[in-house]
Amino acid sequence: MFSGAQISLYPMTDDFVGVITSALRALTPYRDRLRVETDDVSTLLVGPPEVMFPAMRDLFSAAARTGVHCTLSAAISRGCPGEPDDAICASSHFEGPMAPLAQRQAAALSAVANAPKLDVPLVAQLSLYVMGQGNHMDEIYGCVEFLKQSGTFETSKHFATKLRGDSGALFATLEQAFCSFGPPEGHVTIDLTVSANSPSAS
Amino acid sequence: MFSGAQISLYPMTDDFVGVITSALRALTPYRDRLRVETDDVSTLLVGPPEVMFPAMRDLFSAAARTGVHCTLSAAISRGCPGEPDDAICASSHFEGPMAPLAQRQAAALSAVANAPKLDVPLVAQLSLYVMGQGNHMDEIYGCVEFLKQSGTFETSKHFATKLRGDSGALFATLEQAFCSFGPPEGHVTIDLTVSANSPSAS
Repeated sequence: MFSGAQISLYPMTDDFVGVITSALRALTPYRDRLRVETDDVSTLLVGPPEVMFPAMRDLFSAAARTGVHCTLSAAISRGCPGEPDDAICASSHFEGPMAPLAQRQAAALSAVANAPKLDVPLVAQLSLYVMGQGNHMDEIYGCVEFLKQSGTFETSKHFATKLRGDSGALFATLEQAFCSFGPPEGHVTIDLTVSANSPSAS
Repeated sequence: MFSGAQISLYPMTDDFVGVITSALRALTPYRDRLRVETDDVSTLLVGPPEVMFPAMRDLFSAAARTGVHCTLSAAISRGCPGEPDDAICASSHFEGPMAPLAQRQAAALSAVANAPKLDVPLVAQLSLYVMGQGNHMDEIYGCVEFLKQSGTFETSKHFATKLRGDSGALFATLEQAFCSFGPPEGHVTIDLTVSANSPSAS
């Protein structure tokens, strides 16, 4: 199954090029397991979720540690019927049949509990979209229930759920939201915003 | 039908607060027809697409005219079964039964041809998601076909379509992509990025 993301890093500083260039070094340990292509709007990551989410986490954590207000925006996708399969995307997340919702929620919570602690406080906002079936809201509500118990939940907003927490727990939560809801072979996407060091943070 | 967006404006400058505050004045003419709520991650717009897209256009055009590299990121949504209906969202876009695809594409192209010219060159990238039905790719491919003929098409990317053009034509194209594809009462979303003044622009 093809999976990946179009991601963009936005440092709100005159030296945005410097912050981006320096943060990109955090991707080095992941480059042999990801396809990476950049243009003037976004950077494409193609690879399995268990590589892609830690890569995004380390990239954004590096930018956040500069203290500059910065955000990461990402269109994350798996199983789009229009995309060709790619061996680099092979993932253990989607093996076997679809387990019952409660079982998937429990496994997702356990994965978040085991996330590394990075001491980088972040805020995130995500919308999960499940396509290709009539009962898509059941999976979306199941995911929101997981998010509420994840320890990173802040609030429900129109069109999105807002999370707050350490970078480690937060990106583990996002990876589980992306992988554990919607059918294993389904077309599932996340519209994601992550923010650090905002002067308007409450 | 409930419709709206969570939008964020990112000026890549030390004076990002100044650019945002000044650009927000462009929303004034729309405020009586939109519900607007801001927190530290995004601004919620609730209202009909024919108000919301021109409002986003004028907001982002104002920011782009400063010459600063800036981007707009938006999670745009209509017909989400989890959202209550709201009178402020009443729209002429979704009246009547669903016309055949070719007819909707032709009407969308004609709307783009009549867009105002604002002399603000922009790049945009969008992913359209149609939920709640098995044949969702038919509508997505139908939209991509419209985008290719819209005059603003630049390239197809993994997970997204990239557009380039004047702010007027570009936001008219986005409004049509959002309103003309997927059932009139369907759950349809767009993950949108718009960019201006990028130093890496080709």
